[in-house]
Amino acid sequence: MYGPRLARWDKAAEWPLTIAAILFLIAYATQIIARPDGLLSVACELLLYVTWAVFVIDYLTRLVITESRWRWFYRHLLDLAIVVLPMLRPLRLMRFLTVLALIGRNTGNMLRGRVVIYTVGATVLTVLIASLAVFDAERGIGDIKTFPDAIWWAFVTITTVGYGDFYPITLTGRITAVGLMIGGLALIGVVTATLASWIVERVADQNTKTVHATEEQVEQLRLEISELKDLVRGLRPAG
Amino acid sequence: MYGPRLARWDKAAEWPLTIAAILFLIAYATQIIARPDGLLSVACELLLYVTWAVFVIDYLTRLVITESRWRWFYRHLLDLAIVVLPMLRPLRLMRFLTVLALIGRNTGNMLRGRVVIYTVGATVLTVLIASLAVFDAERGIGDIKTFPDAIWWAFVTITTVGYGDFYPITLTGRITAVGLMIGGLALIGVVTATLASWIVERVADQNTKTVHATEEQVEQLRLEISELKDLVRGLRPAG
Amino acid sequence: MYGPRLARWDKAAEWPLTIAAILFLIAYATQIIARPDGLLSVACELLLYVTWAVFVIDYLTRLVITESRWRWFYRHLLDLAIVVLPMLRPLRLMRFLTVLALIGRNTGNMLRGRVVIYTVGATVLTVLIASLAVFDAERGIGDIKTFPDAIWWAFVTITTVGYGDFYPITLTGRITAVGLMIGGLALIGVVTATLASWIVERVADQNTKTVHATEEQVEQLRLEISELKDLVRGLRPAG
Amino acid sequence: MYGPRLARWDKAAEWPLTIAAILFLIAYATQIIARPDGLLSVACELLLYVTWAVFVIDYLTRLVITESRWRWFYRHLLDLAIVVLPMLRPLRLMRFLTVLALIGRNTGNMLRGRVVIYTVGATVLTVLIASLAVFDAERGIGDIKTFPDAIWWAFVTITTVGYGDFYPITLTGRITAVGLMIGGLALIGVVTATLASWIVERVADQNTKTVHATEEQVEQLRLEISELKDLVRGLRPAG
Repeated sequence: MYGPRLARWDKAAEWPLTIAAILFLIAYATQIIARPDGLLSVACELLLYVTWAVFVIDYLTRLVITESRWRWFYRHLLDLAIVVLPMLRPLRLMRFLTVLALIGRNTGNMLRGRVVIYTVGATVLTVLIASLAVFDAERGIGDIKTFPDAIWWAFVTITTVGYGDFYPITLTGRITAVGLMIGGLALIGVVTATLASWIVERVADQNTKTVHATEEQVEQLRLEISELKDLVRGLRPAG
Repeated sequence: MYGPRLARWDKAAEWPLTIAAILFLIAYATQIIARPDGLLSVACELLLYVTWAVFVIDYLTRLVITESRWRWFYRHLLDLAIVVLPMLRPLRLMRFLTVLALIGRNTGNMLRGRVVIYTVGATVLTVLIASLAVFDAERGIGDIKTFPDAIWWAFVTITTVGYGDFYPITLTGRITAVGLMIGGLALIGVVTATLASWIVERVADQNTKTVHATEEQVEQLRLEISELKDLVRGLRPAG
Repeated sequence: MYGPRLARWDKAAEWPLTIAAILFLIAYATQIIARPDGLLSVACELLLYVTWAVFVIDYLTRLVITESRWRWFYRHLLDLAIVVLPMLRPLRLMRFLTVLALIGRNTGNMLRGRVVIYTVGATVLTVLIASLAVFDAERGIGDIKTFPDAIWWAFVTITTVGYGDFYPITLTGRITAVGLMIGGLALIGVVTATLASWIVERVADQNTKTVHATEEQVEQLRLEISELKDLVRGLRPAG
Repeated sequence: MYGPRLARWDKAAEWPLTIAAILFLIAYATQIIARPDGLLSVACELLLYVTWAVFVIDYLTRLVITESRWRWFYRHLLDLAIVVLPMLRPLRLMRFLTVLALIGRNTGNMLRGRVVIYTVGATVLTVLIASLAVFDAERGIGDIKTFPDAIWWAFVTITTVGYGDFYPITLTGRITAVGLMIGGLALIGVVTATLASWIVERVADQNTKTVHATEEQVEQLRLEISELKDLVRGLRPAG
């Protein structure tokens, strides 16, 4: 849509971006869960900046090489926010959606199969990211004191069960929770819609033994009639 | 449906009603959250009455200019209740549905896009309105003591998560909560249904490479056969 | 399906059964909520037996006048259970489903409109009945101590919010709760499915400007060709 | 797909596997709920090993007689895990999914009816299995102290109500709970999708009075035209 150069860049940047995103998650998770001191802490911090730089370069390159720059800019404001707001840690993790989009693009042909893979991937990632963000925000303040508790809380929330044994009390924690809840609604929606599409199709297969007439068949009929006309026209001089 | 004069009024009243609804929400929210004294309190109260007057005038005008007055009256009993029951504050806020209907009417052509915009708008408004209503009802009685807590509670309720860290105990609060829960069911329904419609369509696109024969094509066939008949009829005298 | 005599009985028994069901609910509710003494208590008890008798007579009449008695018997085992197990109060209230079926049968033509009316009716009735049953079972044992609390609990449960401020602890209460939860899943399902059906249809209306060729049109084509054949056959002797 | 010998084995192994699964559940439930001593304990343990042996034999036989062994192996890694990880008790119970698949295969023709039966069966089994697993894991540690409480907790969880009166605190309990929550999402999805498919179909029945032209009808038209051509060709020598 934005020119062939952008398409080439998409292909070239795929793997570097995936690796950068994985490294970012590792560094971020290590920093939050293990709270490292000394050298490891510096390494994590460095990794966070390096991966951030990769995403900044990717964003700027796209902005430069696109054909309709302003249109691209307006349609990718979220990408900008993810890149220029590195201080807001949880939002920084939204970069992972890029990776998911890559996974989605690379898996097979069948739409429904792709929806299932994308849904499982997005759910696991969302639970992981939300657990990290909530654990980071609530530790030492709320009830969520260990990382396994945070993961458990994330599952209880995304499935909209909501026991209430753990719940966030900080603003960051609650914003993360709302994001997770909306993710939960989307999850219910995707599960149901995929099943509905499957059932509707199977029931249709069962009922419709008859096959509808197609454009092609009618076209063939027209050809037959044309031939017939020529035959009749051929009769005239003979008549 | 109710005549051209009503359609013209609809167009003319659009913006005044939107502005009145926004002012109403601002005054209502200020009164509940900030609990103003003196001049500001009087200003809020005044604004509430002025916006109420705008809606009353709108209702009466519609009733007068419609062609089938009784039918309109019976089909708009809810509008009447919203206008004549200004003492019930939470219900008064239902006026905002008018604004949402306007937004829905003004945004583009694609049905699914319109459903998404309408859903996001309706959800944000419902959460805001329910938070205000519950905060007003529960403050000083139940656990919901700050406005941010009320917003958090509204999100936990509309997504049907229901941690149970906050819950209303007054009758007004509980009625608001039931409204919010029903809104939550509707939200799940709309999210799922929109996704289902999208997936069903995409799967159908993928499967049906064949295009069904249309009325027009069959009509063209009939014309061809008619021409052929004329040709054959033309043969007779020659025969 | 079971003969014209059963159809006639259906029509005749409609109103008496509706009235009996309403009286049953009133007597049952009065007994549970008001816990009457003396005369009122006797009156309630009497009303419960009279309405029960009406349903027994209805059941037996249907069994006698149906044409294929055994088939009817096997397909209406639930009706039998509702009639012969009057000791199990909550189950007795399932008789109200009969009334709902009547409402569903009597409201207009449009399927989706009927689904909406039936859903709203069934939900209100289910909440009311479950509130009564839980209040009866839990009063004096669990946390649900007033009837308004029972109604609040029923709404919190059927919408699958589940704050946990009230929950049943007796076996009867928990069985009622499970019934209510399943009702809640069905409610989400019906809301979503109705919306999905509506959206799918509207999207289809928007996309398909083309009208598919129908059987009738193809039939007309065939007639045209037949006439043409006769014309050509008429040429032969002339040739 | 994997050859006729596998199909024959499927048919032959059906009943032995069903019986083995039932015996396994009985032994497992007895061991967890009744905590038997002495002879009964030995009998249960023995039954668990015997039923396990049946499943191992079934797995190995399938692996040996299939035509494309590696493909079968890769596509049935879950079956392998269920068979070779008998130490993980809750996972062992996943063998019951085999039985459910058998039930699904054996019930009637109508897709929607089969979905309903399969859903009810899968839900009841999942609740039962999760109750046993959680009761086994949490007894003496968490709040879930009796088996009825475990069943109640399982229903509250699978319907995503989540009161929070009971919740698991052990790792095994929480993994079971997450499985149950995912089952709950699937349950909502199946209920909704089945209803949606039913409503979409009924609405379609109501709207589409016209019947689309079928391939067969167009084929008949072509035959008519062919006959006509022959007739015209027959005219030429006569002309």
